[in-house]
Amino acid sequence: MTERFDLRKEIGAMARKAKEVSRSLASLSTALKNQALLEMAQDLERNEAFLLEESQKDLQAGEKAGLTSALMDRLRLTPAVIRAMADGIREVVRLDDPVGEVVKMWRRPNGLMVGKMRIPLGVIGIIYESRPNVTADAAALCLKSANSVILRGGSEAFHSNRAIGRILRESIERVGVPKDAIQVVPFTEREAIEEMLLREEEIDLIIPRGGEALIRFVTRHSKIPVVKHYKGVCHVFVDESADLEMATRICLNAKVQRPGVCNAMETLLVHERVAGIFLPAIARALQEKGVELRGCPASLAILPGIKAAQEEDWPKEYLDLILAVKVVRGLDEAIAHITRYGSLHTEAIITSDYGNAQRFLREVNSSCVLVNASTRFNDGFELGLGAEIGISTTKLHAFGPMGLEELTTTKFIVYGEGQIRG
Amino acid sequence: MTERFDLRKEIGAMARKAKEVSRSLASLSTALKNQALLEMAQDLERNEAFLLEESQKDLQAGEKAGLTSALMDRLRLTPAVIRAMADGIREVVRLDDPVGEVVKMWRRPNGLMVGKMRIPLGVIGIIYESRPNVTADAAALCLKSANSVILRGGSEAFHSNRAIGRILRESIERVGVPKDAIQVVPFTEREAIEEMLLREEEIDLIIPRGGEALIRFVTRHSKIPVVKHYKGVCHVFVDESADLEMATRICLNAKVQRPGVCNAMETLLVHERVAGIFLPAIARALQEKGVELRGCPASLAILPGIKAAQEEDWPKEYLDLILAVKVVRGLDEAIAHITRYGSLHTEAIITSDYGNAQRFLREVNSSCVLVNASTRFNDGFELGLGAEIGISTTKLHAFGPMGLEELTTTKFIVYGEGQIRG
Repeated sequence: MTERFDLRKEIGAMARKAKEVSRSLASLSTALKNQALLEMAQDLERNEAFLLEESQKDLQAGEKAGLTSALMDRLRLTPAVIRAMADGIREVVRLDDPVGEVVKMWRRPNGLMVGKMRIPLGVIGIIYESRPNVTADAAALCLKSANSVILRGGSEAFHSNRAIGRILRESIERVGVPKDAIQVVPFTEREAIEEMLLREEEIDLIIPRGGEALIRFVTRHSKIPVVKHYKGVCHVFVDESADLEMATRICLNAKVQRPGVCNAMETLLVHERVAGIFLPAIARALQEKGVELRGCPASLAILPGIKAAQEEDWPKEYLDLILAVKVVRGLDEAIAHITRYGSLHTEAIITSDYGNAQRFLREVNSSCVLVNASTRFNDGFELGLGAEIGISTTKLHAFGPMGLEELTTTKFIVYGEGQIRG
Repeated sequence: MTERFDLRKEIGAMARKAKEVSRSLASLSTALKNQALLEMAQDLERNEAFLLEESQKDLQAGEKAGLTSALMDRLRLTPAVIRAMADGIREVVRLDDPVGEVVKMWRRPNGLMVGKMRIPLGVIGIIYESRPNVTADAAALCLKSANSVILRGGSEAFHSNRAIGRILRESIERVGVPKDAIQVVPFTEREAIEEMLLREEEIDLIIPRGGEALIRFVTRHSKIPVVKHYKGVCHVFVDESADLEMATRICLNAKVQRPGVCNAMETLLVHERVAGIFLPAIARALQEKGVELRGCPASLAILPGIKAAQEEDWPKEYLDLILAVKVVRGLDEAIAHITRYGSLHTEAIITSDYGNAQRFLREVNSSCVLVNASTRFNDGFELGLGAEIGISTTKLHAFGPMGLEELTTTKFIVYGEGQIRG
């Protein structure tokens, strides 16, 4: 165990170095950043043996600690995982550099040309669990957006994260990017997170990635702005006018394609006029895939075999093959239900009615609202951002998937010809 | 004094009401919001006698409390101030409604149409001092951007703020907007602020407006994201190639046009090659206006009569007719000085050199960076935002002047035709 005093000193030094180098990162050329990223990708592949060795240490410790096999799977570096990390970094090379982009520009009556130019945020702290590939992904996105990053992964992936960090720092230094642009916290103590969260003078943004407990911990202790991602209680509303075949296809996809993720459907809302036809069909299809249904009284009347939903089912994020089902009188009740129980994550309407589609899009203020498409599309890659560092369910700074642009802010730039204020 | 328990209950009830009504505000038409704003403006003018009476109570209390005459001036409602408040609200009517604007939209290879649509933040808490006109300004901007607002003004303006709030609530209710869209906290206790800052479940954003002590207090106690505005230590760099007449005009404007505000120049940086000609000229012009100069050793050699600057002068926001002066070897040293001592607020370069102009714009990452124009233009109205609810010197969510757009966030909207994820 490291003493609290030493932790504080060490994290403080890391934060100051990160801030120091962040200034020079802001003016790196796109070409140099891309060159650094390509080196990073290649070096991960070149150092496969070293990475597998370090991963082995984590796996042995994980076995001793009795981690579940699911957790062990997420933790494990394999040649395929390493190749995927390298390819992920190469994808970032292909993305447009957001830094320096002038998002708009206008002329004032006095002749001033005023614009808004994207600049990096500065220093980003990322606090995450399990999967060591986050270390490489996040480092690549932060470097491309010219932010320096302090990475603090889970203690169970300590050796893997440290090894990845060591490789990436050497890669960027070789091409002339300061190595402290990427730093991995070398402490497994939870107090190291607390110390990071106090460095408001140096760190501009904290992004926690992991379970609800981690995110609550980070939010409670942080002096620094946190862009957080709580749970996804996602709804699909099947309207009276829905193409019911399309509705079945989309509901099935939204629930079972990957039930353990935040953009999977957790509650199905069905218009009462089509419930009698639609519910038996979708129930059969879902049950074939092993989904357990929990219904409101009206759905129980149509599907007598299913469990009754309790009040606590409505705000629940199952992350499992379970689905809450509710029959509603129409769009108003569907929106009211989503407003009351939803988590502002992702909601979809299946409808053929133009007016209802537009009303749903306008009145449901979740981070992603879809018409006639699966909730599973709420993802940075699927929406076309090119990459994703997280999905924000809070509205400040970013709402929904965060790509490179969301790792920047804008400053005002003004071209004048001697203007003064009267 | 109100008991802490009652304060908590009351502020909690206000926050819940604000959140409740914020949902219906999001779908109000622009026409209805504008009608409400016009009523607000008219009602303030109609109730002039009542407002002057209530203001009188604040002024009497202020006199007893021994407020300075400057503070008394800022506190005082007069027929002219009331008319200015009403006109300010009418200006907001003319601004574009940001809500519902689709800022961009693109097509994915699978045919999904993906866009980003502006939506209100929800509930905004504004904590401010002195000037009661903030009550009307902020209420108007929040209403136009469809946010509900909880206003907590300074205790010295208690009666004025309460009276303005009462009038505005009646105005909007008359046209069918829920009156709880605008709420004024009826407590003068500082604990009322603390209770507001704990309502993270209901309030989405806190904007403090006032002195540094208030802003630090709010930041320290808030569980809610805060967009803050610390000090403005603004620099003007006069480059070797500057048109020195233009430089004189701009420096004079930046320093003396309104020395007590955050975008006034506090430090003048002069290229060593022109210091010998420029410094005597600008010193004479500034001294004629009563400005005291505090110089680095090199400027003292040119202007032997002036005071020597101490280390603590460089990061200082004087808000007064005082100016720190430093001779630098060139652009690099100017940028280094700004990076070290600046407050990320506003910086200007005066130059005829294209490359230096572009480098300064790119490399100085303050909220507003200007070429050949006065720092005094860093202001929501002057930059063309139409209005301003504050100037953010933190980079998250908004950086620089905040207008209506900065009181919104964006959600993703997706138009599909039955797409599912493979």
